[in-house]
Amino acid sequence: MRTLTLVIYDITDDALRLRVAKFLRFKGLKRIQKSAFIGSLTTSERSNLVAGLRRIVRGHDMVNIQIYPLTEASYRRRVVIGADLTYDEEEEDVIT
Amino acid sequence: MRTLTLVIYDITDDALRLRVAKFLRFKGLKRIQKSAFIGSLTTSERSNLVAGLRRIVRGHDMVNIQIYPLTEASYRRRVVIGADLTYDEEEEDVIT
Repeated sequence: MRTLTLVIYDITDDALRLRVAKFLRFKGLKRIQKSAFIGSLTTSERSNLVAGLRRIVRGHDMVNIQIYPLTEASYRRRVVIGADLTYDEEEEDVIT
Repeated sequence: MRTLTLVIYDITDDALRLRVAKFLRFKGLKRIQKSAFIGSLTTSERSNLVAGLRRIVRGHDMVNIQIYPLTEASYRRRVVIGADLTYDEEEEDVIT
């Protein structure tokens, strides 16, 4: 069974933040904001994701990552205000 | 009935971002990351929150705000990696 998983992060170090973003994309999650990704994961995929994130940020300060399993209802009932922003894959900057 | 509500935002303009953060705090939400707040809201409080956010960002580009109602189970099952960061109330910068 797959569960929607929302990952939000607050990471001060630019290189580390980029590394986390690339990892999340590699794991099949979709970027929905500069510091937020979402994806549908099995329980074991989510465990692997959490373990990978812990490994990446080990030894770094100023890091906070939060991973929320979401119900389909939560996702359907979300409200989005404003435009979809797109992001440069490498630079992690908003490009439109 | 109150529902946990997660608000995440991606706002390029510094002044507008600060205004949104202050508005969310004023509405009783608690900051959990630089660009993420959470709070327990009634349906009408959530409607008012969404209306207020729409009003604040009207006419601005480069804004994306997402509001997710969360179940208690989603919240309980969240995973947090790293330290709790605290934020300067006015400057919106990480201070610890």
